[in-house]
Amino acid sequence: MKKLSEAEINQRLEKLEGWQYEENSIQTKFEFENFKETFSIMTRIAFEAEAQQHHPEWTNVYNTLSITLSTHDAGGVTEKDFKMAETIESIIEAD
Amino acid sequence: MKKLSEAEINQRLEKLEGWQYEENSIQTKFEFENFKETFSIMTRIAFEAEAQQHHPEWTNVYNTLSITLSTHDAGGVTEKDFKMAETIESIIEAD
Repeated sequence: MKKLSEAEINQRLEKLEGWQYEENSIQTKFEFENFKETFSIMTRIAFEAEAQQHHPEWTNVYNTLSITLSTHDAGGVTEKDFKMAETIESIIEAD
Repeated sequence: MKKLSEAEINQRLEKLEGWQYEENSIQTKFEFENFKETFSIMTRIAFEAEAQQHHPEWTNVYNTLSITLSTHDAGGVTEKDFKMAETIESIIEAD
């Protein structure tokens, strides 16, 4: 999996609202209604992460969820991260 | 719920291996076998957190889980945090 250039990353980010390129990764933050809703969303993401064998770095505090995606083996952001980001967005949109 | 003094916190921490008092909270870090095991443990903790209406600040990266407990309303560490920490320990010991 090839590390994407900053230009390639920024181009892909145009189609991904609310995500930023920072510290060699793509990041976002969500806010939900309460903890139960937040953890339910996290559970759905967890199953997809396991299926894609690509896992986020994520932090939850009550109804907030911060997600950081990068590809350790490539030392940066790859298509795997954008695939995962799109999966996360589709889970949240379906909610 | 009354904020505990540093002496009270340190006394309680003696019975809680692997937890530290830092930045006005009690904190720990676990490492499990893989993501699936880690998220399974998180799910069990999530149910207890919801039952106790006391939620952790926690960060997961693949097989690691960092947990920070404090009581926002009290501006520090209270008995609620130690109750939650003991619950977390019992979940992990039962695994």
